[in-house]
Amino acid sequence: MTEKTAIESLTIMTELVLPNDTNVLFNLRGGKLLHWMDIAAAIAAQKHSNRTVVTASVDNVSFENPIKLGNVVTLQAKVTRAFNTSMETFIEVWTEDMTEGTKIKANEAYYTFVALDKERKPIKVAPLLPQTIEEKHQYESALRRRQLRLVLAGKLKPEDAPELKAIFTSEN
Amino acid sequence: MTEKTAIESLTIMTELVLPNDTNVLFNLRGGKLLHWMDIAAAIAAQKHSNRTVVTASVDNVSFENPIKLGNVVTLQAKVTRAFNTSMETFIEVWTEDMTEGTKIKANEAYYTFVALDKERKPIKVAPLLPQTIEEKHQYESALRRRQLRLVLAGKLKPEDAPELKAIFTSEN
Amino acid sequence: MTEKTAIESLTIMTELVLPNDTNVLFNLRGGKLLHWMDIAAAIAAQKHSNRTVVTASVDNVSFENPIKLGNVVTLQAKVTRAFNTSMETFIEVWTEDMTEGTKIKANEAYYTFVALDKERKPIKVAPLLPQTIEEKHQYESALRRRQLRLVLAGKLKPEDAPELKAIFTSEN
Amino acid sequence: MTEKTAIESLTIMTELVLPNDTNVLFNLRGGKLLHWMDIAAAIAAQKHSNRTVVTASVDNVSFENPIKLGNVVTLQAKVTRAFNTSMETFIEVWTEDMTEGTKIKANEAYYTFVALDKERKPIKVAPLLPQTIEEKHQYESALRRRQLRLVLAGKLKPEDAPELKAIFTSEN
Amino acid sequence: MTEKTAIESLTIMTELVLPNDTNVLFNLRGGKLLHWMDIAAAIAAQKHSNRTVVTASVDNVSFENPIKLGNVVTLQAKVTRAFNTSMETFIEVWTEDMTEGTKIKANEAYYTFVALDKERKPIKVAPLLPQTIEEKHQYESALRRRQLRLVLAGKLKPEDAPELKAIFTSEN
Amino acid sequence: MTEKTAIESLTIMTELVLPNDTNVLFNLRGGKLLHWMDIAAAIAAQKHSNRTVVTASVDNVSFENPIKLGNVVTLQAKVTRAFNTSMETFIEVWTEDMTEGTKIKANEAYYTFVALDKERKPIKVAPLLPQTIEEKHQYESALRRRQLRLVLAGKLKPEDAPELKAIFTSEN
Repeated sequence: MTEKTAIESLTIMTELVLPNDTNVLFNLRGGKLLHWMDIAAAIAAQKHSNRTVVTASVDNVSFENPIKLGNVVTLQAKVTRAFNTSMETFIEVWTEDMTEGTKIKANEAYYTFVALDKERKPIKVAPLLPQTIEEKHQYESALRRRQLRLVLAGKLKPEDAPELKAIFTSEN
Repeated sequence: MTEKTAIESLTIMTELVLPNDTNVLFNLRGGKLLHWMDIAAAIAAQKHSNRTVVTASVDNVSFENPIKLGNVVTLQAKVTRAFNTSMETFIEVWTEDMTEGTKIKANEAYYTFVALDKERKPIKVAPLLPQTIEEKHQYESALRRRQLRLVLAGKLKPEDAPELKAIFTSEN
Repeated sequence: MTEKTAIESLTIMTELVLPNDTNVLFNLRGGKLLHWMDIAAAIAAQKHSNRTVVTASVDNVSFENPIKLGNVVTLQAKVTRAFNTSMETFIEVWTEDMTEGTKIKANEAYYTFVALDKERKPIKVAPLLPQTIEEKHQYESALRRRQLRLVLAGKLKPEDAPELKAIFTSEN
Repeated sequence: MTEKTAIESLTIMTELVLPNDTNVLFNLRGGKLLHWMDIAAAIAAQKHSNRTVVTASVDNVSFENPIKLGNVVTLQAKVTRAFNTSMETFIEVWTEDMTEGTKIKANEAYYTFVALDKERKPIKVAPLLPQTIEEKHQYESALRRRQLRLVLAGKLKPEDAPELKAIFTSEN
Repeated sequence: MTEKTAIESLTIMTELVLPNDTNVLFNLRGGKLLHWMDIAAAIAAQKHSNRTVVTASVDNVSFENPIKLGNVVTLQAKVTRAFNTSMETFIEVWTEDMTEGTKIKANEAYYTFVALDKERKPIKVAPLLPQTIEEKHQYESALRRRQLRLVLAGKLKPEDAPELKAIFTSEN
Repeated sequence: MTEKTAIESLTIMTELVLPNDTNVLFNLRGGKLLHWMDIAAAIAAQKHSNRTVVTASVDNVSFENPIKLGNVVTLQAKVTRAFNTSMETFIEVWTEDMTEGTKIKANEAYYTFVALDKERKPIKVAPLLPQTIEEKHQYESALRRRQLRLVLAGKLKPEDAPELKAIFTSEN
């Protein structure tokens, strides 16, 4: 199976914050943003695998900067690493207030997807070939995030997650 | 500030999976479920705090059982612990196929919210008083999840997260 | 066919009033509430019958208390009585203003559903066994409401609706 | 206050049944139709009163003919009678299957609205002047329907509803 | 194939401008109105052809009068001329502010549709028989608009569009 | 006022075709695509002007290739030329079937927007500086399209539209 680059899966999505997307403070609801990130990331995973994909997990996401009604939200997603039948995607979110001309980073997240064949069984996907320094860094750290996901889902014992464990036991 | 019990924040939400909520396999999209969980959990946090609340973070969520078009989804959310101005909520999700009479647990997640006063500044909320064994367990473990959130958000060093660290350094 | 209790069909639904749900006064539209009540009641009827159900009728509903944008609306539905292939459900609606901590009853209604088999033909459902005093009262009065429905639909002559007629001819 | 005719309030609305409007049988949900009827009728009441209106009640509605996905639904609403600050509207619903060229009447209903002034207080509206035989019949029978509404809402005793009572005590 | 009149395809649609339909000025978005016009016009073309129809083109539309949140929008569509397998429809749009009692024309447009048979192949439709002076005028000018559409789509050379060319080369 | 380049306004939007976006053939409705194009183009015009913008017109659009349910639709918009207070934008639309790995151009269109100041009055925008050959071609031909728009809106006589007229009167 031929390796594919991260850039081949790059997906850019632009959304406008409408009234029904906001909470009583007229800021974008966290849950709505999680929804948009899922769509952008799923499309990136589909581009990498040319398969139907389903969301397998979303990593811890924190919300710092409120995004206001009427703002433009830009989401950029790409695959960071493939693990047999699953793909980790990295999503970055920016928000722009057009009349003020400001654009700030609002958020980032990792979503994981599983590729399915026509019988809805998991199927192997092409490996990811990281190219830029940033992509190589994401590729490396994907292993640690995967161990954390498995530990949190109760599918891996902490002591069997060496990369993850190293963070907590390093010298000091 | 008087303590409040977990049951006072209990929120039950029922949703029907409609065509626009599904992916091409006619299963509920992961992102849509994250959205519903955010609304159920936010209402629970509002019941606890009697304040406007905004989503601060969502913890790692994994998706195991697909939820089908036409199924009934029941979400149950309650506050597990309050930390000064923030509240952790626990959400459980069940899915029912009415004609088959089956009801299975599809998912669970932790969302954290911050309470805001009328100037949109964080404001202290009532402490949570756990009552059942399950609630006490959730209350205890909330500390460890909070440390993980802070470590993942780069706001706490792993070595300053003793409860979390204990998991990785125990015995061996 | 084994009788089922009302509590087995209990359905609780929570909704948040969003901008698109409101009229120009920023209060929930009556028609939107009728829609939510239909969904909550249909789920209750499905729980009772384990069948696909379709709405057969909605009884007179009056709207007294306006429900405001941002309020939490809680709907509670349960089956009151089964008549061969149809079920009457009772829906109560409460509205909460979280920051004010008020919760008032906004509304109540009766919806009737017909259970269908796989060929979309009406099919017999389990009888309802009322247990509490309230449930017994609902069970009894269901007969009178059914006669009114049939009279209003032109399917029953007023003189053939004894329970209903008694209301108008009592004493005098 | 000058009388207005029924035709001045005539409102025609056309909707297409989309996937999210349907139940698992791919027929239009009853609750969605109740929602559309509310909008059509509210516009008719606004045309009559030139005021903001809010739904006061909906009378008993029964659903006979299923309306299919892809069908065109035509709603026609007009005011039948004005009572001081409220207006009764009559809504008829037809459904067309364009490729079959069939158009059948699916439904009819009565919704009542209250007109509000700028302080959101009920305000008097123009009387309705019925013109056709059909409009005169609707105008007359509006009184009886109004008594039924009041009796059902517990605001009028059956014995104080003479037009309504006459139906049950006639002859026999 | 029997000719059909324009009035047979007449379609009236009424919409209420809701918060999610508006831009940051709380006026109806141009794109949303284009969407509503497409639905009204498609229904008119279905009425004429009794076929499934798909949008083939929309002619130049300009937006003059802003339509405000809460306004009632009335769309009226009818077929102006049939060309073998396609139909041109004319849509007029009015906007009413009910409390002010004003109704102005907001817009007009021409959409063209193609009729499809069950294999999704274009199929011949009945000719249109114009009756009123206005309908005859629309029928005549449809030819020129069609030539413009074909020239703009690069399917016809300007010199082969005599009716269109005449406009630019007349007298001077 | 400093000129801005076309690339500064580049807006990429990705949408997934969901059930409610489709017609009975399960292809994307033309009207829905017109809606998405309006949003993408409005964001591009906002990026160029840093102002609130409103849709002034949409040019003739033709629909050739059907876009299927589940496909990914990519819209790319940029400003082609500024005329005092208005901006013409060019939108291209591609559709991808991920599992087949095909990506074809589905559509293109020109939308024009007017920039508004805080009093909602039209306000001058920066001139556009075309850079690539393609951008220069779009810049040149924008004049002819503008004349056509004005002629079609009845605001310019054909004989006063020299660039447009040239097309029809060129020797041949």
